[in-house]
Amino acid sequence: MAHNIAILGASGYTGAELVRLIATHPNMRITAMGANSKAGQAMADVFPHLRHLDLPVLQKIEEIDFSGVDLCFCALPHATSQEVIRDLPKTLKIVDLSADFRLRDPAEYKRWYGNGHAALECQAEAVYGLTEFYRDEIRAARLVAGTGCNAATGQYALRPLIAEGVIDLDDIILDLKCAVSGAGRSLKENLLHAELSEGYHAYSVGGVHRHLGEFDQEFSAIAGRPVKVQFTPHLIPANRGILATVYVKGDAARIHEVLARAYADEPFLQVLPFGQHPSTRHIRGSNFCHLGVVADRREGRAIVIAALDNLTKGSSGQALQNANLMLGEDETTGLMLAPCFP
Amino acid sequence: MAHNIAILGASGYTGAELVRLIATHPNMRITAMGANSKAGQAMADVFPHLRHLDLPVLQKIEEIDFSGVDLCFCALPHATSQEVIRDLPKTLKIVDLSADFRLRDPAEYKRWYGNGHAALECQAEAVYGLTEFYRDEIRAARLVAGTGCNAATGQYALRPLIAEGVIDLDDIILDLKCAVSGAGRSLKENLLHAELSEGYHAYSVGGVHRHLGEFDQEFSAIAGRPVKVQFTPHLIPANRGILATVYVKGDAARIHEVLARAYADEPFLQVLPFGQHPSTRHIRGSNFCHLGVVADRREGRAIVIAALDNLTKGSSGQALQNANLMLGEDETTGLMLAPCFP
Amino acid sequence: MAHNIAILGASGYTGAELVRLIATHPNMRITAMGANSKAGQAMADVFPHLRHLDLPVLQKIEEIDFSGVDLCFCALPHATSQEVIRDLPKTLKIVDLSADFRLRDPAEYKRWYGNGHAALECQAEAVYGLTEFYRDEIRAARLVAGTGCNAATGQYALRPLIAEGVIDLDDIILDLKCAVSGAGRSLKENLLHAELSEGYHAYSVGGVHRHLGEFDQEFSAIAGRPVKVQFTPHLIPANRGILATVYVKGDAARIHEVLARAYADEPFLQVLPFGQHPSTRHIRGSNFCHLGVVADRREGRAIVIAALDNLTKGSSGQALQNANLMLGEDETTGLMLAPCFP
Amino acid sequence: MAHNIAILGASGYTGAELVRLIATHPNMRITAMGANSKAGQAMADVFPHLRHLDLPVLQKIEEIDFSGVDLCFCALPHATSQEVIRDLPKTLKIVDLSADFRLRDPAEYKRWYGNGHAALECQAEAVYGLTEFYRDEIRAARLVAGTGCNAATGQYALRPLIAEGVIDLDDIILDLKCAVSGAGRSLKENLLHAELSEGYHAYSVGGVHRHLGEFDQEFSAIAGRPVKVQFTPHLIPANRGILATVYVKGDAARIHEVLARAYADEPFLQVLPFGQHPSTRHIRGSNFCHLGVVADRREGRAIVIAALDNLTKGSSGQALQNANLMLGEDETTGLMLAPCFP
Repeated sequence: MAHNIAILGASGYTGAELVRLIATHPNMRITAMGANSKAGQAMADVFPHLRHLDLPVLQKIEEIDFSGVDLCFCALPHATSQEVIRDLPKTLKIVDLSADFRLRDPAEYKRWYGNGHAALECQAEAVYGLTEFYRDEIRAARLVAGTGCNAATGQYALRPLIAEGVIDLDDIILDLKCAVSGAGRSLKENLLHAELSEGYHAYSVGGVHRHLGEFDQEFSAIAGRPVKVQFTPHLIPANRGILATVYVKGDAARIHEVLARAYADEPFLQVLPFGQHPSTRHIRGSNFCHLGVVADRREGRAIVIAALDNLTKGSSGQALQNANLMLGEDETTGLMLAPCFP
Repeated sequence: MAHNIAILGASGYTGAELVRLIATHPNMRITAMGANSKAGQAMADVFPHLRHLDLPVLQKIEEIDFSGVDLCFCALPHATSQEVIRDLPKTLKIVDLSADFRLRDPAEYKRWYGNGHAALECQAEAVYGLTEFYRDEIRAARLVAGTGCNAATGQYALRPLIAEGVIDLDDIILDLKCAVSGAGRSLKENLLHAELSEGYHAYSVGGVHRHLGEFDQEFSAIAGRPVKVQFTPHLIPANRGILATVYVKGDAARIHEVLARAYADEPFLQVLPFGQHPSTRHIRGSNFCHLGVVADRREGRAIVIAALDNLTKGSSGQALQNANLMLGEDETTGLMLAPCFP
Repeated sequence: MAHNIAILGASGYTGAELVRLIATHPNMRITAMGANSKAGQAMADVFPHLRHLDLPVLQKIEEIDFSGVDLCFCALPHATSQEVIRDLPKTLKIVDLSADFRLRDPAEYKRWYGNGHAALECQAEAVYGLTEFYRDEIRAARLVAGTGCNAATGQYALRPLIAEGVIDLDDIILDLKCAVSGAGRSLKENLLHAELSEGYHAYSVGGVHRHLGEFDQEFSAIAGRPVKVQFTPHLIPANRGILATVYVKGDAARIHEVLARAYADEPFLQVLPFGQHPSTRHIRGSNFCHLGVVADRREGRAIVIAALDNLTKGSSGQALQNANLMLGEDETTGLMLAPCFP
Repeated sequence: MAHNIAILGASGYTGAELVRLIATHPNMRITAMGANSKAGQAMADVFPHLRHLDLPVLQKIEEIDFSGVDLCFCALPHATSQEVIRDLPKTLKIVDLSADFRLRDPAEYKRWYGNGHAALECQAEAVYGLTEFYRDEIRAARLVAGTGCNAATGQYALRPLIAEGVIDLDDIILDLKCAVSGAGRSLKENLLHAELSEGYHAYSVGGVHRHLGEFDQEFSAIAGRPVKVQFTPHLIPANRGILATVYVKGDAARIHEVLARAYADEPFLQVLPFGQHPSTRHIRGSNFCHLGVVADRREGRAIVIAALDNLTKGSSGQALQNANLMLGEDETTGLMLAPCFP
């Protein structure tokens, strides 16, 4: 029997991506879609690529009847999300795609996001949504906090290495190359095609990107001591994809072995043969993450490279994977779409 | 029970697109893949985006055992295809994606393609693969000839208008904007990123593009008299998509009505409300074709615009749609993937 | 001796393009730059690619001292431009890049732009800025009205043909492919990279684009009777360039001959050999316009294709060419930059 | 009086870029152009964007008369270049753009390029062409070896820092993002638009890229001890540009101060204010290099970012800058073109 699904924030890219994926999910039915600024419009007017689907009209969130809803995806902006979720029925299963419930320590939340938290009682029950590492907690959770897309990419490259102690924890550098859809459908000058196409640049340089809050929280927890990575994202003229080039100190062959073993049974995490490395074009539009390890010419140094689609495995695909777990579905249902290349 | 499928020419873009689509088809199993120049390689080495799939190793075509194969897709180059198909078992169902069996008149074939035909006996039984207009013949066919991607786009815009006599047959202009994957994975200087990106141009200008053979054949047959359209394709810096801007003389509202009625029950052909028109971004990676009609400021003139994905609805998606019919499957099975936007 | 130049609207793309071109002009010195919304900022902060230049700080327009200025470029938005120019010193030479002074008939202006005109006395003295056809008037003018970028492209393809009577005036179709910088630096959802990249579509379909006002005015004047072309622009995922594919009825060889003769001595208009046609990549960043003529397979029909850079020959390059004439400079000074390919 | 210039290898991208730049150089005249595979063709047929120029027909190199030539640019492939230069008149001034004369130690040359060197006597007199650091030697040189484009970018970021001892020499990581024209006009599958557009990946990972030979030679010479950096290039879907993100250990403010002082009088090297960092879009098509320094959140660590155009400052612009010095021209002549944005 199909689960009834609500999507809040349906007029953004992650909302649309959820609809795209659920469109071929055999056991989910979208029964309500919230988008305050576009309430009253048909989804086909906001996202014409979804016009073949029979979808509910966009509504104001406060007008949605959640009584028959089994699970609600919240693809709302940061800070808004916590206020909305606070007021949703307490029995409703929720997968949140915002940053609002990712950081367990309210002080850290305030430090990275600037504002106090409006729903600390919800945060207390939230489970961090990196599926492969929190599977059991997610299965039992009422509220799952989707990870940052950059944070997911970096963690797939590093968590097993930190856990197994095969790299130097004080010299980890993540150089990320991010496609533009990660910035959402927001009207900013630097996101215009004429600005971005044919050029690229770093941003949030120097350790100020908010996803560092997630890296610090997770890596320190695994290591049992503070771990502070360096992380520089770059904006690349492409629509989908994150490529993380991670510079670590450790034995490359051992690092590859640890990663390959850690992900051997994971349906979406594919570790390439030692010495090979991935490209974003080969995961585009899919829920797969490809990982590679190469030894540097300097002994004791390795490069780990991870690639995933920020809208799929980095947010909406991850969210659906978690929702599957929460609803008792097979984790991969609706997510086995092959990447779209070329 | 799953049908056993062979794909010849698996190392090209249309071959890879077939694999991408069949990957989520519940009733097809790829049991053989031919690619002479890459024989012995794993598909994951030729197309790393398909590495999560359990696929047969690429083989030389002559080494393939077709005994258990239910249907074979031929995604081989023109001229090669006819020689291969001529020698395949006569009981094998075949969907050909090349140009070899599209033109019923051997003289026309020779005129447009330059060479004599090496398999006229096969051509005699071939059915033209524009699904929506040859559905019954395709269902009963052994050999279906996939249409040209440009030819499909133009026909979706024009066939019902010609059939119903609502446009002037002597003044039809098709101005097409084609993405680069339509040129295949061939090593040509003008297909390099550094050449193509940020620039665009017309090609095959003046009525020399081979897909005109299909337009002439089909439109003249419908009209019962010769119809010779003007057709100018342009190469656009994008990977997937064809946008056909068709200039016709006739009453725009009537034209819209005819198109909307003709396609009212078609699962993949979506006619937009009168005055709206499509974009390639909204059909990317899918089997949908969006159509729109707008009245020109000059009375009695209309613009019909059609958009589809050249690799999907324009070739491999169409091929799978036809294969579904030939195998008794529902026509839409495996083809309801929503477009991939952004 | 260097001419003192002011640029109003320096924070838009055409303003920046003027600065780029004047940067290597030996006889022009930019002494004032107006940009109301960015007043007080350095140009290097608004356009970092110009940071090597020694430029005046951006000012509010009303604060600029025009006493020593020889010529002023107005790169302001439509409607704003007329109000500003109305109040500028009456002795100041002005090249306007907006649409405000292009249409000689106030009724036509109102019809296409919606608002009444606030500076009809200025319009009365304005010369239409299509250099090659209004050279003498421009040389003597105080106020020159730069043409629309699409309007320029279409006119280069058609004016000599209409003047010489070698094409059917009732069946002219212009299908234009326009790069995105033509839309300016405005924050619109459909101009975002994630929206535009990898997709393309028509806009202003059906004869509603404002540049039709210019086509109607100019073509009818040449022909001595009303000429109403069909014109459909398309937005292409590229930053610079316009490609006009023009469908006409007439003898192709004769058409080529007329164009080649008309432009034989023009420094910036290059007619390719008969049968060849241009690409936008080959004029990018330059003041050149390439034109080609191809015969269609249907006798008596021809395709004329013109390519230029919307920011250069289509606006700021044209403006500088006109300014050169107005200041007694050689027309090509500062404009012989070769196109930037790849 | 104009210098007579020959260009060998005129049919590649760096050859075309030389012609583009020299087109507006007041004191250079191209009198011979060699391109063996295209001998007999007009440059306008090979590079239509240069069709407005009056250029000599392409010749076989052995047919060129060098008697009146003042300076010859060699834009030939590696290995070919040394054989050609060996046989050129010994009095001819030469700027070589290949890798053949960059490495002073023949053993290092063989190690990185695989082949023995065929013109060691020429190599002995070659001066390394990084203008700002070899200015006096270049002025006096007969043969100048242009640097690798990646090598130039990395050296601009690092040379003053190594020279002044303000960074840890054992922990330098260069993560480069390179546009596709750096790979030349070669027919390789991974350079096709359909492959590259919308995707990106690392290449030559692990310390195997040949430009490391230059880094090792130059950095070790400056430091007076071996310096072995880590260097990972990435291929980005853009046509022009290199962005080097360099991770170093040292005091960020001090690093910025050293760079700013070192380049204070350099016409083409622009150090941004502390904390700002560059984008490739702002140097596109120009000879400028923009540099920025940002402090990392971890004390004692800094990120240095450098951006230049691989075809201009990275190769042909650098070559022209060196030629100017060798011919007694002002170093900046013909090179002050502003970047082409958007």
